[in-house]
Amino acid sequence: MEKKDIIVIGGGPSGWMSAFVAKKEYGEKSVLLIRAEEKVLIPCAIPYIFRRIGTIDKNLLSDEPLQKADVEIINGKVNSINRENKTITLDKEEFEYDKLILAIGASPIVPKLEGKDLENVYTIDKDPDYIRELSNKLKSAKNVLIVGGGYIGIEFADELRKNGSNVTIVEMMAHCLEAAHGEEYCNLAQEELQKTGVQLRVNKKAMRFMGNGKVEKVVLDDGEEIECDLVLLAIGAKPNAELAEKAGVKTSKYGICVNEYMQTSDPDIFAIGDCAETFSFFTKKPINLRLASIASIEARIAGANLYEKRRKNEGAIAVYSTCIGQPGVCFGAARMNETEAKNADFEYYSGEMTTIDKHPGAVGEARKMRIKLLFEKATGYLIGGQVTGGPTSAEILNSIAALIDGRKNIEDVITFQAGTHPLNTPSPLTYPLNRAAEDAKYSNMS
Amino acid sequence: MEKKDIIVIGGGPSGWMSAFVAKKEYGEKSVLLIRAEEKVLIPCAIPYIFRRIGTIDKNLLSDEPLQKADVEIINGKVNSINRENKTITLDKEEFEYDKLILAIGASPIVPKLEGKDLENVYTIDKDPDYIRELSNKLKSAKNVLIVGGGYIGIEFADELRKNGSNVTIVEMMAHCLEAAHGEEYCNLAQEELQKTGVQLRVNKKAMRFMGNGKVEKVVLDDGEEIECDLVLLAIGAKPNAELAEKAGVKTSKYGICVNEYMQTSDPDIFAIGDCAETFSFFTKKPINLRLASIASIEARIAGANLYEKRRKNEGAIAVYSTCIGQPGVCFGAARMNETEAKNADFEYYSGEMTTIDKHPGAVGEARKMRIKLLFEKATGYLIGGQVTGGPTSAEILNSIAALIDGRKNIEDVITFQAGTHPLNTPSPLTYPLNRAAEDAKYSNMS
Repeated sequence: MEKKDIIVIGGGPSGWMSAFVAKKEYGEKSVLLIRAEEKVLIPCAIPYIFRRIGTIDKNLLSDEPLQKADVEIINGKVNSINRENKTITLDKEEFEYDKLILAIGASPIVPKLEGKDLENVYTIDKDPDYIRELSNKLKSAKNVLIVGGGYIGIEFADELRKNGSNVTIVEMMAHCLEAAHGEEYCNLAQEELQKTGVQLRVNKKAMRFMGNGKVEKVVLDDGEEIECDLVLLAIGAKPNAELAEKAGVKTSKYGICVNEYMQTSDPDIFAIGDCAETFSFFTKKPINLRLASIASIEARIAGANLYEKRRKNEGAIAVYSTCIGQPGVCFGAARMNETEAKNADFEYYSGEMTTIDKHPGAVGEARKMRIKLLFEKATGYLIGGQVTGGPTSAEILNSIAALIDGRKNIEDVITFQAGTHPLNTPSPLTYPLNRAAEDAKYSNMS
Repeated sequence: MEKKDIIVIGGGPSGWMSAFVAKKEYGEKSVLLIRAEEKVLIPCAIPYIFRRIGTIDKNLLSDEPLQKADVEIINGKVNSINRENKTITLDKEEFEYDKLILAIGASPIVPKLEGKDLENVYTIDKDPDYIRELSNKLKSAKNVLIVGGGYIGIEFADELRKNGSNVTIVEMMAHCLEAAHGEEYCNLAQEELQKTGVQLRVNKKAMRFMGNGKVEKVVLDDGEEIECDLVLLAIGAKPNAELAEKAGVKTSKYGICVNEYMQTSDPDIFAIGDCAETFSFFTKKPINLRLASIASIEARIAGANLYEKRRKNEGAIAVYSTCIGQPGVCFGAARMNETEAKNADFEYYSGEMTTIDKHPGAVGEARKMRIKLLFEKATGYLIGGQVTGGPTSAEILNSIAALIDGRKNIEDVITFQAGTHPLNTPSPLTYPLNRAAEDAKYSNMS
């Protein structure tokens, strides 16, 4: 039986990055990455394959940096872990490990509804063959019904609508994006979807899929029947924790349990990305959050901690964005949002600023931009931001993330030294981070 | 004689913002803003008036927020300050003040060269009438020579070239942008200028302007003669410190001296923006830096400190960008750059990352992006970044500024939780802030 110093199971962003970092941090150790797929999809871009990208072959993670870093890659499915012997078993092989990283992702949740197994009812799986088939069908789909109005749901909806399909989103919460945004930004995003003709059914549940072999309609809880020739189930994913569980590694409903070094209950086994528990930067409690960006940071933490505790996880600031509508309007958040703050008993005050993303507008191509910031009352700390606007919105969110990470308070944000330029940013007098913080301060003082 | 609680002299960005903030912070006080101009130009957009904007009327600061905030605005030139009586004298009026803010800007440096008074030799003044005249002439200028290859110089050069003029920049340093960037990024910017046909003369001095009434040619120190029908002098500006100096307020070659509360040697007089000394966030020493963004932050500090010390100036992180070439390529820095670090005896190591600003590139409209980060050797602190790329570059610089401001070190930047999205940002695996920090770490370890 061959022995590898470090074995990574899973080839998605977290597996990729942990192998890369492990080799950089511990260059003398052998690193083996085992993945189920021959090639790995860039997961966040799955909604863009059928239209913008055109083919899954242009949406693959590159192995080149791993190969250059001398990471060995093999294909295979790991069936079990023997922690006592420190071995893993594949269909035909066995390896001994010194340190093991589990980066085995999450699987789409399939609701237990009648008709869920009809032809043309799809989930958002990450298996390349499955996504190839789905993408091919989406190219010519006429009526598509999407169950779940989260980010992935609305991205598929927007792309499908732009491709000429009739699209209906069924969301059981009061708004699309409720987990991502406060009510105000949910409404703004819904307006963009509706402008392009996406149909929304909020506060509604899909109860039954009907059809003769192939799906033909969906029945909602209020009795409405919606015709469709394709259904997408986009109601979230659950961590792949079974492999760890079977091996006696501790898990919870949030995934494989980890400490702040990304170490599981077995000190030689680490877990990262969608299969692992993620805890909040703000509350330090577990949260439901599956982002490739967070996965890649958890990977950097685990990869560095294998033989020595070098990096500590301070918890996730959920930072994400999307782009929908015509012309592309970005929405994004660096969280906490209003709902989350309320649920966690964080008293906050908020401030807003609406401006344009160049100055003066007469330089041309300026886009409207709107920012909302949340500050904790007790400490003044910046605890969240939401942005909607043009192409720079997502990077402004990253400034918000950096300010949150720096434990900046409202006075710090008011005097934050953003650089400005007529062709690149809002004006120094309307720069929305400073001004939204001022709005929060002065509208709460008076 | 009328008394005002707070008088701001100067209507540019710093004056505007200090009046706005003073009124927000001390709502019960009367605030008077006195400015020389009827209307105030947005200074940073001056290079864009003659082509993109078309007319100075579309490049004016809005008075509306000031009026709404109940700031009184009058036009006039302040000739003297009497600190004993706490009065200021205009041509026909006198006011008593309780607190005075000097926001009186800087004036273009005019080299003492033969022929500098010829017709069609211009500086970059901020007087609207002067700029109107200049902009009108630029619209039809055939051969333009620009003395000074700083940001303003290259912005005029780029716009003029795009407008069909023949343009030559004469720069006495070895590269354009030497004060702004290290050699590497100076070269990249020069390449963009040259691609569009801008002629460069670096390591050269303009010695003499010649012509019969109107400028016709410029003679360089190596004897070269360059024909031109218009000359722009863009070699910097010197602080307008005379008014303060005459009143016995302390000044230096960097401008009106101020403490960390933006207070001058007279505790009732504050100075901000281009007329005031600015000191470095890194070295805490005075630096030559005139940015509207910094001016607006100094204004927020002064405006809050008039009656109570509420805000402290931690020093300027110089953050700025520009956009030149075809299609617009952004260049920018959050400083220290290499030259500055060397001059200040900061030992540093650097890391770089080149990527694209969407992912995968097949989603369309992706632009190349290149980032360089500098970390101080002794502490690991991030001390600077330079970016070149597409439209999101300037906001990425602002993330760098936020990370610098948060005193983040190389490990913090490697694990910085940037949000990513296929249509909005680079991929989580190539996000250039993380990866440039990793490059700095791992290329310096081996």
